[in-house]
Amino acid sequence: MTPQGLPVPPISGRTTLIAHIGFPTESFKAPMIYNPWFAARGIDAVVVPMGVRAEDFAALAPPLFRLSNIRGALITMPHKVAVMELLDQVTPTAAIAGACNAVRVQPDGRLMGDQFDGEGFVRGVIRKGQPVEGRSALVVGCGGVGSAIAASLARAGVARLALCDPNTAGMTALAGRLAQHYPRLVLVAGNADPAGHDIVVNATPLGMQAGDPMPMDVSRIDPSAFVGEVVMKTEMTAFLQAAAARGCRYQVGTDMLFEMIPAYLEFFGYPAATAGELRGLAQIRW
Amino acid sequence: MTPQGLPVPPISGRTTLIAHIGFPTESFKAPMIYNPWFAARGIDAVVVPMGVRAEDFAALAPPLFRLSNIRGALITMPHKVAVMELLDQVTPTAAIAGACNAVRVQPDGRLMGDQFDGEGFVRGVIRKGQPVEGRSALVVGCGGVGSAIAASLARAGVARLALCDPNTAGMTALAGRLAQHYPRLVLVAGNADPAGHDIVVNATPLGMQAGDPMPMDVSRIDPSAFVGEVVMKTEMTAFLQAAAARGCRYQVGTDMLFEMIPAYLEFFGYPAATAGELRGLAQIRW
Repeated sequence: MTPQGLPVPPISGRTTLIAHIGFPTESFKAPMIYNPWFAARGIDAVVVPMGVRAEDFAALAPPLFRLSNIRGALITMPHKVAVMELLDQVTPTAAIAGACNAVRVQPDGRLMGDQFDGEGFVRGVIRKGQPVEGRSALVVGCGGVGSAIAASLARAGVARLALCDPNTAGMTALAGRLAQHYPRLVLVAGNADPAGHDIVVNATPLGMQAGDPMPMDVSRIDPSAFVGEVVMKTEMTAFLQAAAARGCRYQVGTDMLFEMIPAYLEFFGYPAATAGELRGLAQIRW
Repeated sequence: MTPQGLPVPPISGRTTLIAHIGFPTESFKAPMIYNPWFAARGIDAVVVPMGVRAEDFAALAPPLFRLSNIRGALITMPHKVAVMELLDQVTPTAAIAGACNAVRVQPDGRLMGDQFDGEGFVRGVIRKGQPVEGRSALVVGCGGVGSAIAASLARAGVARLALCDPNTAGMTALAGRLAQHYPRLVLVAGNADPAGHDIVVNATPLGMQAGDPMPMDVSRIDPSAFVGEVVMKTEMTAFLQAAAARGCRYQVGTDMLFEMIPAYLEFFGYPAATAGELRGLAQIRW
């Protein structure tokens, strides 16, 4: 502590780095979640935001991952797809999502990639009492986060998965990768009707701007369905408000964020944490 | 603050990075000096140690300096010479020293290099009441730090400067650069006799290991001389103890470290700090 009572980063030459790579960095939340937790647990590690423009990523990443004090990186926009080419190994979830948001430097220097956006989403759904195995899910939006959620829902055992995205090529390719890894999964592509689904997900950016249209016809969501959101800018988006008004249970965007962090920490080799503990310690400046 | 009362790094996506680049990193002190000061002053910046091996530096540095949230870097062993080739502009002090320990990213992306090892040394000497201008100085050891001290002593106006190093090629080249920039400076090369000098500096690593020989014949140091040391591992090295026993005033190695930091901070565009303030806030784990 300083004489003024302000917090002090206990960073030294023995501190392990986890790079948080993306651009722009201003909206990054991870440093304010991980670092207080590391401090509380007495773990000598720090998440450091690095604003890397798309055109610099391929040059920076290989030497950065050779730093003697780096354990890995959190990868965010716009590098989640580009990073795949630099990795020596990826998990099936990352392969299906076609994107990676976590890189670990193995002891031999090889790079291992995984994808936890969807894992965070699914952990949150299950924690809130909504079973996933054997159920039917709709994911509207098949960009990075939607693909990751679809991959994780498949991994968690949904029986039926509907995908919808105006980018039909991307949507169809995602469906193909899912079919290849999960041959018994019933896949539906191109239909955003939520009727009949147990789990309904907005994985589009709709809801970030005031006046955005609804990502789907909310009046068709079954009141018994569980509704999830990926937008984090507002906790109760218009979409979630409408779903809640229908009686649906729901999960806000930041739940996905906090639920995925224990999975990341495990991936990086740190002790178990819970989403609740992380949320309690976080010092997020929104 | 965490509920446990532990300090928390207030790092966010808006935090400015200063990379501390060297290898190995374990003995780095700067993060534990700068970061508490930034926190105390409410400055949203962080010094981050990066362990860069010699063979990776040329690949890493250019994209690292293009990070959107980097202000510059502290450069230490083994990169102080190699970094010179990457810079767009260097100060005369860095040019004479042939090495650079600070890089600032200019608003247009160009890289500006300076060298503060010697500046820290000279500021400390002057603060302790020993005038430099017009005096005679001996610098034993013309490696990176010795060259930097010689350059800064010349800049501060010594009238006579003696250099000594078993690497005669390096010593002679340094003398040549000094002569070019300071044509009126009286230069003596290859004589480690401290007799007749007002300021006497050990800029060799002798004193880091128990049983190291003295860097020069201490019995020849004038008791009125001011004696400086660059070894930081021990505050009172055998050399300083012997000089103090002769009645000499002296400066320990870490004084150079704390005195140079206000110069660095000024270079990076931060408000004025004093060495005493920095020392009071530092959280060094030796």
